[in-house]
Amino acid sequence: MARNTQVAADHNAPPVTRILAEYVAGHASRGWSDAVDNEAHRTFLNWLGCAVGAARHEAVDAALAAVQVLQPAPQATLLGRTEKVDIASAALLNGISSHTFDFDDTHLKTIIHPAGPVASAVLALAEHTGASGRAVLDALVLGIDVACRLGNTVYPDHYDRGWHITGTTGMLGAAAGCARLLGLDADRTAMALGIAASQPIGLREQFGTMTKPFHPGGAARAGLMAALMAQHGYTASPRAIEAPRGWAQVVSTKYAWNEVTDELGERFEISFNSYKPFACGIVIHPSIDACVQLRERGVQPGQIERIELKVHSLVLELTGKKEPADGLQGKFSVYHGCAAGLVFGRAAEEEFADDIVNRPDVVALRRKVVATVDDRIDEASADVTAVLMDGRREHVFVEHAIGSLQRPMSDADLERKFHGLSDGILGAERTSELLAACWSLGKAADVRALTRLARP
Amino acid sequence: MARNTQVAADHNAPPVTRILAEYVAGHASRGWSDAVDNEAHRTFLNWLGCAVGAARHEAVDAALAAVQVLQPAPQATLLGRTEKVDIASAALLNGISSHTFDFDDTHLKTIIHPAGPVASAVLALAEHTGASGRAVLDALVLGIDVACRLGNTVYPDHYDRGWHITGTTGMLGAAAGCARLLGLDADRTAMALGIAASQPIGLREQFGTMTKPFHPGGAARAGLMAALMAQHGYTASPRAIEAPRGWAQVVSTKYAWNEVTDELGERFEISFNSYKPFACGIVIHPSIDACVQLRERGVQPGQIERIELKVHSLVLELTGKKEPADGLQGKFSVYHGCAAGLVFGRAAEEEFADDIVNRPDVVALRRKVVATVDDRIDEASADVTAVLMDGRREHVFVEHAIGSLQRPMSDADLERKFHGLSDGILGAERTSELLAACWSLGKAADVRALTRLARP
Repeated sequence: MARNTQVAADHNAPPVTRILAEYVAGHASRGWSDAVDNEAHRTFLNWLGCAVGAARHEAVDAALAAVQVLQPAPQATLLGRTEKVDIASAALLNGISSHTFDFDDTHLKTIIHPAGPVASAVLALAEHTGASGRAVLDALVLGIDVACRLGNTVYPDHYDRGWHITGTTGMLGAAAGCARLLGLDADRTAMALGIAASQPIGLREQFGTMTKPFHPGGAARAGLMAALMAQHGYTASPRAIEAPRGWAQVVSTKYAWNEVTDELGERFEISFNSYKPFACGIVIHPSIDACVQLRERGVQPGQIERIELKVHSLVLELTGKKEPADGLQGKFSVYHGCAAGLVFGRAAEEEFADDIVNRPDVVALRRKVVATVDDRIDEASADVTAVLMDGRREHVFVEHAIGSLQRPMSDADLERKFHGLSDGILGAERTSELLAACWSLGKAADVRALTRLARP
Repeated sequence: MARNTQVAADHNAPPVTRILAEYVAGHASRGWSDAVDNEAHRTFLNWLGCAVGAARHEAVDAALAAVQVLQPAPQATLLGRTEKVDIASAALLNGISSHTFDFDDTHLKTIIHPAGPVASAVLALAEHTGASGRAVLDALVLGIDVACRLGNTVYPDHYDRGWHITGTTGMLGAAAGCARLLGLDADRTAMALGIAASQPIGLREQFGTMTKPFHPGGAARAGLMAALMAQHGYTASPRAIEAPRGWAQVVSTKYAWNEVTDELGERFEISFNSYKPFACGIVIHPSIDACVQLRERGVQPGQIERIELKVHSLVLELTGKKEPADGLQGKFSVYHGCAAGLVFGRAAEEEFADDIVNRPDVVALRRKVVATVDDRIDEASADVTAVLMDGRREHVFVEHAIGSLQRPMSDADLERKFHGLSDGILGAERTSELLAACWSLGKAADVRALTRLARP
């Protein structure tokens, strides 16, 4: 569960971003002295000479060779779209897309969303090279293991400091996955990890903006390019992750190295991955789950006098919005979540659309939810009682919500979720074919049979 | 001057990078249980559904529109080479190239090398849009101002922590410069800065590897793409730099906001930029400078009995290598630096070639250098006496080396340095034309007249 501690915070900083933006956008052209302008010419000239002088250096050769792999575009599928782009951009865009609804997978020990960076990079590269489904799965398992083990190494201090851990470990997972897919040896794989280590992507301040899903996308792109550069001879420190001025010690004050080495190759972090049944913050899930169960018992919205909800204080702290104005706010309203569970029996992305959040019957029902704090109830649990008009009381206690490690979504649940996401984009029939291709991925001779199905 | 302090270091970390590299490269395909493999299928399927489901979201539209600006490649010049690549890759590669010799510019207050990230991004974009030289210079001055002011805000704590500050401020400078060049308004410029803020690039552990020059290159690419994404409507936090979980507070324990605002638009940080006359660490520069002056007074290598060198202890700590084996080690040898100054009257990249460092007359001369520590002498100074065979003593005291703010390189010095770098790549005549184009950049109607000259 995410915590709310924050190391050394200055909440009263001046609006520096805005000040600089106005300055850059508004300052007069050549609005400075001759001396400053002369220095600008000198700076430019000196830089240009340095760039020309090193033009034939092996570092430039290696980086150029990696960049040239991206041509000619288009090379790789944008999932759910007709356009194709180069593989680095496909990694970026599929990474953005897969995290946009905040509905993807969660490694609960670190709250990393590992598939965003790793699968986005691996699939784009695999489509280009025509890799087998087995090779994709191998790269996925190992890449996720690298990202999540390194996440375990620095979590929670790293996250508490303000890093969005998905993108600050994800570039290492993506580099590992792509190195594996390219068949790099251990030396070049170490270089791929090293190049990636310099590129942690993601600040928690971005939550609520498009730059949040950019983090896994950017990490996917960075990891893919790091592997391509390493393949072509680009070098990095062989101790880039663990050295005193390497990744772990620079981005965290905690570094538990044993999290990397313990049971390596025996325990796989993908085993601790979970999937969200509901398209909102995980603290609301037990409450929604309970309301879905009430609906399944036959409780109908029209019968309801009152919903008595008892939850841990954190639930109301994070998602206590009583009157959400739109879909995004709805995701932070346990009241709307309960109403959605009772009315629709689900709470996927559609149930957080603006018009659903404002639909009169849904609004009326959410206003019947009376939430009280009870810290004897775990954050992962919820206690819900429907008090009906006729005086009956229906009670559900959810210890662990559907989607938790204790009560994982079934394969059928995952298929229903997939249809809910994909039918509107690809159509129900094509979606079923794509699902079949996913389940049989380990047997696919060429992953392009699957990516073709993911284009409308 | 860079310091050597290090916050909380663990020097005994296990070789985690190597361990993970061997694991990723060597673990057997499907070397895990059916349960793990099933979870891999579920993870992949769930991720794919999320990506397809959000495929038409405005975040994906905006990012795709930015990526599509990169097509069709080739678009932009690789300085000193015949190949052209897309503008994002050109920003990356020219950034790498310009920092490869460690011979570029230095903002001495922060030891940021500001042109690498900013000019590399701005020129690639300007070539594509056909911007004027004036627009390039405006973007360069403002972009460098943003990077260096933010550097001032967090330096030195940020650097001491282990960040390579050139790439961890440079993406903000590059974003600012490109936003300016694209004519973005303040709102979108703030978004460009915000997207860039999530992408600090660079660990000091990478020094001595190709990933060091990758840092300015990666920052150039990140800033350019951030500006393109903002132009197409991608969003970020408007307080991404200064918020408690924003860039400054996440990457540093010092954040002096007044460094952003003091004399903004009146004092320009490019005024404090300096250029290296010698292709090596700045602590050796006073000693080399003194030896060049001895040579100019007529002291010839064959006459020399002994060179008495008195320097601050830091000089020998950082560059005390007595018997450098190759060019790279030569850059960390004040002994070789002195020999080069006396034999060649210069110490550019060529004087740090492997064969020069091992040439018998150069080796013989460096062995005649007797260095002693005298901490009454400033780090920025050197006291050098040539004791000649005939008993004469020639003494030079350098208070501030050539290339310092106190004794800047003249325009003629910069031209000589440029010829030394470029003549072997572009030829002397073309190099002279390119120099003329640099000096008159502010008057150029289209920067492509200059970039054409930078291709062999």
